[in-house]
Amino acid sequence: MSDGKLILLPNLLDETLDAFNFLPAGVGPLVGTLQGLIAESEKAGRRYLRRFLTHDQMAALPLQTLNEHSSPEQLQVLLAPLLRGETWGLISDAGLPCLADPGADLVGAARKQKVSVQAVAGPSSIVMALQLSGFSGQRFAFHGYLPREPDLLEKRIVELEKRSGMEHSSQIWIEAPYRSSKMLEFLKTKLQPSTHLCVAVQLTTPHERSASLSISEWKKISFPIEKEPAVFLIYKNQQLWVNNNFQ
Amino acid sequence: MSDGKLILLPNLLDETLDAFNFLPAGVGPLVGTLQGLIAESEKAGRRYLRRFLTHDQMAALPLQTLNEHSSPEQLQVLLAPLLRGETWGLISDAGLPCLADPGADLVGAARKQKVSVQAVAGPSSIVMALQLSGFSGQRFAFHGYLPREPDLLEKRIVELEKRSGMEHSSQIWIEAPYRSSKMLEFLKTKLQPSTHLCVAVQLTTPHERSASLSISEWKKISFPIEKEPAVFLIYKNQQLWVNNNFQ
Repeated sequence: MSDGKLILLPNLLDETLDAFNFLPAGVGPLVGTLQGLIAESEKAGRRYLRRFLTHDQMAALPLQTLNEHSSPEQLQVLLAPLLRGETWGLISDAGLPCLADPGADLVGAARKQKVSVQAVAGPSSIVMALQLSGFSGQRFAFHGYLPREPDLLEKRIVELEKRSGMEHSSQIWIEAPYRSSKMLEFLKTKLQPSTHLCVAVQLTTPHERSASLSISEWKKISFPIEKEPAVFLIYKNQQLWVNNNFQ
Repeated sequence: MSDGKLILLPNLLDETLDAFNFLPAGVGPLVGTLQGLIAESEKAGRRYLRRFLTHDQMAALPLQTLNEHSSPEQLQVLLAPLLRGETWGLISDAGLPCLADPGADLVGAARKQKVSVQAVAGPSSIVMALQLSGFSGQRFAFHGYLPREPDLLEKRIVELEKRSGMEHSSQIWIEAPYRSSKMLEFLKTKLQPSTHLCVAVQLTTPHERSASLSISEWKKISFPIEKEPAVFLIYKNQQLWVNNNFQ
């Protein structure tokens, strides 16, 4: 082990929220120990630090960026100060680094080079959506983004529906905010009437809402979604709560 | 919607820990609004409330239990006060309710009866282990407990290893503390040398440790585990961090 450390810090699910209510109080003091911060963008990094540090402290703290365009060589540049013994933080634009986020590659590289890594708990829209769905939390799978091309998307959705039925597992994915509404309409036409679908929108914000219903029930309700972040979950089990899905 | 509400509250991963560092500060005030608490046992429920309430407040708060033996009829008994408009909390023995925990059935039943459900972020050993592994957080699956019988266990592990390779996904499971060490030894003999395995033990506690290595590397190190809670993750991808697994 080098003495350097990478701390995986939680971020809020929406930048307008108050850190006090949604992040562990231990996060502030930890941010105070950092010698640098890695964020998806400089702007997001500064916005995060501003919650915990004074102007002078912020000015003294180096910021680096990691995003889906970062190469293996850039990962190595990010790790250099940690290999010299420094403590750096890593944040995601929203929620937890490494979940549906480029952070996992940096952690993989850090671990290969014996840099110690610490994770700090916080909000994850994927996890909260799963909790709110009422679907199985004994078996679940997350698939990131599904294909956009309609034929491929339909094939994939039918596959996931089948897998959910065979394994009694919850199947989870996300969609770009501007496509959330389209995804919902697509699911209503492509999934079987008895399959359960949960859609969780803008979690933890004042605009939070979710519905967890069978497709036949979904067809009877109105659930408008604007260009909002949403998590989609399906569970193919007609009598949801009669089964002890934790057996 | 009834006016009742079920609040899914986070618990610590270990009862000896300090809530201040690990839970959002918003949890305390929320506990103060509860009209009852549902826990896996009365003892665990009292231990949780003691962190946030005075003796008198605790004495006035009804406690109910929900565990893997609870029947659908008992779920209905638990929901009765919420259907009358009360606000109740639900906790797990450790971490988040509904993840590898009987809570999901109660949430499913609550949602069917239009009781509103709120999730509050907090620590999950499954999620933190995934973050610490450096494995893909773009695609992952959690499987709860695997079969105990050695032939079935081997078959399942080989299946999950194959799936990880085909889907570039992280495969995650847990084991009863007294079997953690046995599971690790089993994996070292049954997985392919190039498959990556991460074992994360006693997360967030002073005894926390984890290793994320290929099986051939695992065979060279000593990683003793006593009867400790552990999360197991595999990822079949020889050149872990050279691949942008978020593409």
